[in-house]
Amino acid sequence: MIVRGDRNEVGKLIDGFNGINQIGVIGWGSQGPAQARNLRDSLKDTGINVKVGLRHGSSSMEKARAVGFTEESGTLGEMYDVIHESDLVILLISDAAQVRHYREIFGAMKPKAVLGLSHGFLLGYLESISEKFPENISVVGVCPKGMGPSVRRLYEQDSGINCSFAVEQDIDGDATDIAIAWAVAIGAPYIFQTTLRDEYRSDIFGERGVLLGAVHGIVEALYRHFVSRRDVTVCDAFRMSAENITGPISSAISKEGILGLYNSLQIHEQAIFDIAYVTAYNPSKALLQEIYDEVASGNEIRSVVMAGDRLKEFPLGTIDATYMWGVAGRDVRESREKTGEPPIEPLTAGVYAATMMAQVDVLKARGHSWSEICNESIIEAIDSLNPYMHARGVAYMVDNCSTTARLGARKWAPRFDYAVMQQILVRYENVRAESNSLILRFKNHDVHRALATCQEMRPPIDIAVA
Amino acid sequence: MIVRGDRNEVGKLIDGFNGINQIGVIGWGSQGPAQARNLRDSLKDTGINVKVGLRHGSSSMEKARAVGFTEESGTLGEMYDVIHESDLVILLISDAAQVRHYREIFGAMKPKAVLGLSHGFLLGYLESISEKFPENISVVGVCPKGMGPSVRRLYEQDSGINCSFAVEQDIDGDATDIAIAWAVAIGAPYIFQTTLRDEYRSDIFGERGVLLGAVHGIVEALYRHFVSRRDVTVCDAFRMSAENITGPISSAISKEGILGLYNSLQIHEQAIFDIAYVTAYNPSKALLQEIYDEVASGNEIRSVVMAGDRLKEFPLGTIDATYMWGVAGRDVRESREKTGEPPIEPLTAGVYAATMMAQVDVLKARGHSWSEICNESIIEAIDSLNPYMHARGVAYMVDNCSTTARLGARKWAPRFDYAVMQQILVRYENVRAESNSLILRFKNHDVHRALATCQEMRPPIDIAVA
Repeated sequence: MIVRGDRNEVGKLIDGFNGINQIGVIGWGSQGPAQARNLRDSLKDTGINVKVGLRHGSSSMEKARAVGFTEESGTLGEMYDVIHESDLVILLISDAAQVRHYREIFGAMKPKAVLGLSHGFLLGYLESISEKFPENISVVGVCPKGMGPSVRRLYEQDSGINCSFAVEQDIDGDATDIAIAWAVAIGAPYIFQTTLRDEYRSDIFGERGVLLGAVHGIVEALYRHFVSRRDVTVCDAFRMSAENITGPISSAISKEGILGLYNSLQIHEQAIFDIAYVTAYNPSKALLQEIYDEVASGNEIRSVVMAGDRLKEFPLGTIDATYMWGVAGRDVRESREKTGEPPIEPLTAGVYAATMMAQVDVLKARGHSWSEICNESIIEAIDSLNPYMHARGVAYMVDNCSTTARLGARKWAPRFDYAVMQQILVRYENVRAESNSLILRFKNHDVHRALATCQEMRPPIDIAVA
Repeated sequence: MIVRGDRNEVGKLIDGFNGINQIGVIGWGSQGPAQARNLRDSLKDTGINVKVGLRHGSSSMEKARAVGFTEESGTLGEMYDVIHESDLVILLISDAAQVRHYREIFGAMKPKAVLGLSHGFLLGYLESISEKFPENISVVGVCPKGMGPSVRRLYEQDSGINCSFAVEQDIDGDATDIAIAWAVAIGAPYIFQTTLRDEYRSDIFGERGVLLGAVHGIVEALYRHFVSRRDVTVCDAFRMSAENITGPISSAISKEGILGLYNSLQIHEQAIFDIAYVTAYNPSKALLQEIYDEVASGNEIRSVVMAGDRLKEFPLGTIDATYMWGVAGRDVRESREKTGEPPIEPLTAGVYAATMMAQVDVLKARGHSWSEICNESIIEAIDSLNPYMHARGVAYMVDNCSTTARLGARKWAPRFDYAVMQQILVRYENVRAESNSLILRFKNHDVHRALATCQEMRPPIDIAVA
């Protein structure tokens, strides 16, 4: 089911929010400020109060006040008070905080209230410890397909960002209407249906795959591969790997699709793309299936929770201080105006496209919907994350995303790197060498000279055949 | 508790094997042939029958017959028949087969029989799915600290290999005697006590750490680091990284301990070792704690089981076809006679020693015994695995160990590689640059000239102080 949203039809929104007098937006991270403001703007004059809930003494209190959420106007309060008062509780605190505090949060909610999530992580965690949501509340998900700042900016520009929605628990038959109304009110132009389980699986899987982990590992390995060639400078190696994916390859896919990227190549480049694609598809798919199994089994979520306990003693270091990101990447970005966009490197394009297609195939085989597959494997990469990485660098992006995503990227990027280095490039070079030697043998084959001689002795061509 | 073994005291062995008329050795992998032959030789003329049990049609049947286990003599039979007949069932089939068949195996055992394991993996698996061993059998572990071929070879050389032993379930008070008798009979000179839980944790942890995963990742990253220096050839880079650890560093630790390795360095080399050690210790420890948590939580064992299901579609590729292992490593091994052993590279030694010490500290903090810590972190690496890697290459070793170890090495080596590249070498180079610039500033400091001038003008030295 895909719904076309139109937030200007305010009357219908109120119908959808039947029985909702107050929406509590809990947390002020990436999604909180965006959704709270979009909801307030959309629901102006409807009588529905949008109230932000934060911990006492939180440094975010000041930020919320700065954009007009205040205690005086009844639109800002203590987190558990707001949870207790609200008919729809939109829980936008971090994954780690959800895992730490879910019992108190559930305990504070009114019976028959609706819990709203923008991510299925909490369901995944409850499943991994064999627990459930309380039976006396409804649980819905509305998951914008982009970061909070984009959710706000695109709303202001009157275009909005697509959302998936899911109804996990519906105690009185209103949950679907409420979820759709929430999605419309934060500005979603298209709203497609999923389940919270599919959502957390594809989301956690996707960021460990082609959205973050895979792209990081692939460009590290390809950069080293190009650097090892004597005729390539480090800056050109960066342009042929990281810059290529976040720049021209992403633009080509964004405009023409993955097949369009392929069709845009010259025939001799397609030959290289073909070898790269064929050698990359299976090793990438093996890793992506491993990631999916780890996410679906609850292992990956348990790992995130255990990592949280270690972060105090061992904070995550940054990954952007290596020569590739700290020197080559910066130089390439700074010299862009002068050098222009590099041509598409067919080896890089083949490896990247194979990984993207393998991710699509893994999600399809596990029963995900096409809208979810395209969003988590292609559109979010091409239109949201890669452009950001193009501006700041892949390593910067990894160092500045959510802890769950950051841990995942650090865990899986090295695996993709090793797959490229140990499986893909080794086979690619062998096939290239083999085809080079076959082509050389073809070019130097004695038959050509023999044929030429025959030609001299043969009858005129274009003989009429009776 | 540490027991001194002496397998020639056959009388005592029979006392230990009180009530055991037949020992069934199930499986013919690495440990099976070694333990079956050692047991047969030790128990000759005692009346205790050592019988090998294999699946009907197994290709190992022929190998067992070739060393004298035959159906005719009652020393070879079908696996479940042998399990059903035996008083002590030593289960040496692969981890994957144990997980697949444990229900049938438990079902085939006589009540009050003893199940013997040489590895705690099965206990770890049962814990991860909240199951238990049957209550009507005893369960003991005897875990040789080396590969099967070493267990046999060292027995033949009359020296033997150390074992840990564990009593997991003891239904009639005989289990400890039986475990010690088994260890003595396979030739253990020293036998130290542990628990099956500690054993599987330290074993799976150890092979993911410094025994396989860490050493592979570290040498990949250091090799690249040395290759990137213009004054170093690829073969020298290999000598400074992989060859250094498996050769001179291992010999030095084997002969003099880790502190002896350090003391063998020149003072200027110790300065480099110090920086390497200090920058490497924390990033390595963070990864090792992550590995320990993953093993202890059951995540790692669940991952091994899930990987087993994927291996049919995506068999594990080898990792030894890259330039480093396929060309540089082979050339270095072939040129050893000419070039001799390389000098200890203090950067490599510092990183390696820091990882080894971090592994010791993680095991100590989790309550493991010193004998287990030393075996799983130092002795097995230095005396068993590294010499093998020295002969064949680290990648060859990884490609030819058990599936459980192989999966672990492929999972964690890239993480150690990235830790070395992103955290350790970046900080190491910064500290080196900082100390270089401080030293340069020291050398060029104006005070030296001023002091020289003062010196010319100052009174004669050696002024008598009243």
